[in-house]
Amino acid sequence: MTDRGEPVRVDFRTEPSGYKHWRLTVNGRVATLAMDVREDGGLAPGYELKLNSYDLGVDIELYDAVQRLRFEHPEVGAVVLTSAKERVFCAGANIRMLGRSSHGWKVNFCKFTNETRNGIEEASAESGQTWVCAVNGPCAGGGYELALACRHIVMADDGNTSVALPEVPLLAVLPGTGGLTRLIDKRRVRRDRADYFCTLEEGVKGKRAVEWNLVDEVVPRTRLEEVARQRAAAFASGSDRPADARGVALTSLERTLSDDRIAYRWVTCTLDRRRGLADIAVAAPAAAPPAEVAGAQAQGAAFWPLALARELDDLILHLRVNEDAVGVWTLRTSGAADLVEAHDRFLEQHAAHWLVREIRLYLRRTLKRLDVTSRSLFALLEPGSCFTGTLLELALAADRSYMLAGAREGDEGARPATVRLTAANFGAYPMPNGLSRLASRFLAEPGRVDDLKGRIGQDLDAEAAAEAGLVTFTPDDIDWNDEVRIALEARTAFSPDALTGMEASLRFGGPETIETKIFARLSAWQNWIFQRPNAVGDRGALQVYGTGQRAEFDRRRV
Amino acid sequence: MTDRGEPVRVDFRTEPSGYKHWRLTVNGRVATLAMDVREDGGLAPGYELKLNSYDLGVDIELYDAVQRLRFEHPEVGAVVLTSAKERVFCAGANIRMLGRSSHGWKVNFCKFTNETRNGIEEASAESGQTWVCAVNGPCAGGGYELALACRHIVMADDGNTSVALPEVPLLAVLPGTGGLTRLIDKRRVRRDRADYFCTLEEGVKGKRAVEWNLVDEVVPRTRLEEVARQRAAAFASGSDRPADARGVALTSLERTLSDDRIAYRWVTCTLDRRRGLADIAVAAPAAAPPAEVAGAQAQGAAFWPLALARELDDLILHLRVNEDAVGVWTLRTSGAADLVEAHDRFLEQHAAHWLVREIRLYLRRTLKRLDVTSRSLFALLEPGSCFTGTLLELALAADRSYMLAGAREGDEGARPATVRLTAANFGAYPMPNGLSRLASRFLAEPGRVDDLKGRIGQDLDAEAAAEAGLVTFTPDDIDWNDEVRIALEARTAFSPDALTGMEASLRFGGPETIETKIFARLSAWQNWIFQRPNAVGDRGALQVYGTGQRAEFDRRRV
Repeated sequence: MTDRGEPVRVDFRTEPSGYKHWRLTVNGRVATLAMDVREDGGLAPGYELKLNSYDLGVDIELYDAVQRLRFEHPEVGAVVLTSAKERVFCAGANIRMLGRSSHGWKVNFCKFTNETRNGIEEASAESGQTWVCAVNGPCAGGGYELALACRHIVMADDGNTSVALPEVPLLAVLPGTGGLTRLIDKRRVRRDRADYFCTLEEGVKGKRAVEWNLVDEVVPRTRLEEVARQRAAAFASGSDRPADARGVALTSLERTLSDDRIAYRWVTCTLDRRRGLADIAVAAPAAAPPAEVAGAQAQGAAFWPLALARELDDLILHLRVNEDAVGVWTLRTSGAADLVEAHDRFLEQHAAHWLVREIRLYLRRTLKRLDVTSRSLFALLEPGSCFTGTLLELALAADRSYMLAGAREGDEGARPATVRLTAANFGAYPMPNGLSRLASRFLAEPGRVDDLKGRIGQDLDAEAAAEAGLVTFTPDDIDWNDEVRIALEARTAFSPDALTGMEASLRFGGPETIETKIFARLSAWQNWIFQRPNAVGDRGALQVYGTGQRAEFDRRRV
Repeated sequence: MTDRGEPVRVDFRTEPSGYKHWRLTVNGRVATLAMDVREDGGLAPGYELKLNSYDLGVDIELYDAVQRLRFEHPEVGAVVLTSAKERVFCAGANIRMLGRSSHGWKVNFCKFTNETRNGIEEASAESGQTWVCAVNGPCAGGGYELALACRHIVMADDGNTSVALPEVPLLAVLPGTGGLTRLIDKRRVRRDRADYFCTLEEGVKGKRAVEWNLVDEVVPRTRLEEVARQRAAAFASGSDRPADARGVALTSLERTLSDDRIAYRWVTCTLDRRRGLADIAVAAPAAAPPAEVAGAQAQGAAFWPLALARELDDLILHLRVNEDAVGVWTLRTSGAADLVEAHDRFLEQHAAHWLVREIRLYLRRTLKRLDVTSRSLFALLEPGSCFTGTLLELALAADRSYMLAGAREGDEGARPATVRLTAANFGAYPMPNGLSRLASRFLAEPGRVDDLKGRIGQDLDAEAAAEAGLVTFTPDDIDWNDEVRIALEARTAFSPDALTGMEASLRFGGPETIETKIFARLSAWQNWIFQRPNAVGDRGALQVYGTGQRAEFDRRRV
């Protein structure tokens, strides 16, 4: 919720017929997504979305479009991203909105917008759906960051059109959606040129933009649409997406929201706001997977792995934005390990099929969302749980895990908790650092990951799981309640800020990628800058923007 | 200067006879550095340095000891770091000191302490001087971070001795000197164990500390000294440092400090505080290098490359801490390119000699200090300048460079500015990311670095330098004054915070290392946390520590 407006409860579910800000058209192998932001269509009152500037609501629709293009349009091999406005491409995030937003809102907003841009890049890189940006007017800040997420940028060569990252000179903050990192590490712009570029309010246009690799090509305004379409068609012709397949409709996601409970078909979350806890329970599928992909296609959005991804995705987004004082999430599972393993095997066997590939990539993105979520994650593995394969990733994504050793008193008949590895744990769901969660976990002993391959399909009890390094603690029933309670109480008593910084630092060992640089480096700097009086004080640049007043800065360098 | 105390002008120059807090003893191939902090020896009034806790003054002495061990003691092949106190190793940074320090002071303090620890690691890795830590009592926070910087950690196995990073539970901040990154990426502690460890006030002792790789071995208290000495002796016996060479005395560094000028022999800095500018001028050597290393050894601390490193090092530290409102540094050079090239050649030819190796490593550390300095760096290349080899690194470290094309009006006889590459630019001085500044600059075109090797020794005028990608802008005399003045005025007008975040992000493209992770990721998180009310507000953990009051936290996660 914003600091100064009324609390806004954000719903991330939408669909094209409800779009206020985008026009999606599909023409054979090439789709066009045109930004057409409605000035009075802001998510909260108090600001106007002028010049194709955006707020979270605009980006929720963008995210929805990205998802639907992937699932509902197997025939689309390339997407042209452009503006439907006459004289502007996109002015970036709306400054008035930022100026009136709380710190947490701003940071969450940047995280979500960046995740969507990562998804656009993933579509180009792994899904055979390549994004081409047609810059048809000023393209500044978040607008240029949107372009940077595309594989190919074509810009109109006219007096009006330029690309710019004017955040530092205009607003005293950094580009919030990975702009600096994508400039340096994706487009590999020379650092001194990047330095200059990032201090120019007016940006760079024409030949220099190409020479500095800020865009890929410039063409006369009159030819822009045609050239962008040609480039898209060329990418589409190289795509392995099937031209004649039927898509899967992302039907409206059913959920029940009560005061302290969010329930979907397979995922349920219970909130204990007083203690600052969210308990997330995920259920294994109720039946075996179909024999063939056609069966999964027939199930559509009800197919368990896809439903799971959608439900988890929505829940994570919901909790992040609407429940910011709930700092610790416990992760539980239930159900039949065999059925999860069977589904993992199905996904593995048909990994080359466009729909199965999409589902796996969606699960991967959803698990990555968990990795970068600023909440403490504790997995609880109890009798009846089902931490198998894809669901075991939840425990591996957690900051720690507690596994109950042996049976519960009074319930000695129940099978003690076990965990089971499947092939999915060995590469299907890489973290933002590019490693599987297992490889990331065993940085010190890479050989251990290979050894664990030999244990795929085995049920490992608490002792074996601890021995294998898959869980953190294995109290027995006598200690379980106290140990878990004390751990949760301690966690919720610590400073939320210190935990956020600590978790972000400990979760990503080993290699860095553009994604980890953005989340762990750029957003940390931005978090800092978003708090500084030079940006958000009464005379800070973000506050006085547009008032005609000049920002006042404390000149001391930190 | 601290926020609440009197302004303190810090002098980084010291020598063993002036140490208050350390005891340095050299015994053949093994030296022992024992921490013995004087409680009443703080740099500023208002806090007591109990339990071997430290402030900047303690760390300045540590830095001095590290430097002297390397230059003055070629015979020392290993160093045992321990405590001279009976019942404590080191309690980390002094909390009272942190509690009363300004934000900028805290951040600068962490930066310097971390650079010193990087130097300790470099000594072990590249200088044949391996550090062994003997943990003889509680070792917490910055104390454990000091241990983490050593190659080998031996800990006493007694009831009193443990290692701990209790910052999150006790102080609501992160370990400030790379602890989280060294835990995960250097010692590769499993992330869930690291998570647990970092939330334990009391830390971990005994066997578990070894099992989790927090330390390398534990031994009975009575055998600690002996085992540490044995390990050090073993490292020393494998060292290539000469047992019989004479060291070079790091004689007192001469400088003249007036209100707006800091002058050394080869480096001079002029301050314009009103405009927020420091102009740094570096002079090339006045004579050719000696024919043999013996000659350099005879010159000792007066040998130009060593003198240059010391003077630049001191100036950078001085400006960082004592002139925090001077946000833009201009870098100039003067003198004879041939003499710099000859010195570079000398260093290259004798790179295997222990003293020359030390000098090159010192220049490398000093240039790295520049890379992580939170000031805008502009290189100005004018007629008479000498951006050659080692001195060209200053321009390559700068955020941008301006090179005057052609002659100055009225001074047409003077030789226009040129730059000259030497072999030193191709690997002698890697940045914190492990790449040479040239490789880092041309991430997009790695082949260009190889091409440039063919131009070693050539004088490149502005046009050729621009063509080679070595400089940013090349105005001629007509435009020079205005263009440089406007660039400097614009830079000093921007938000210092936004510039710090922007520069930190743009300077390090490509690979990440433990060093870049610490500077660009961990310190960014810490910067943020150091500003948050949960840490530094009236009821923040850092403020109420030791008062018996409980910290109060805003529970919202960001």
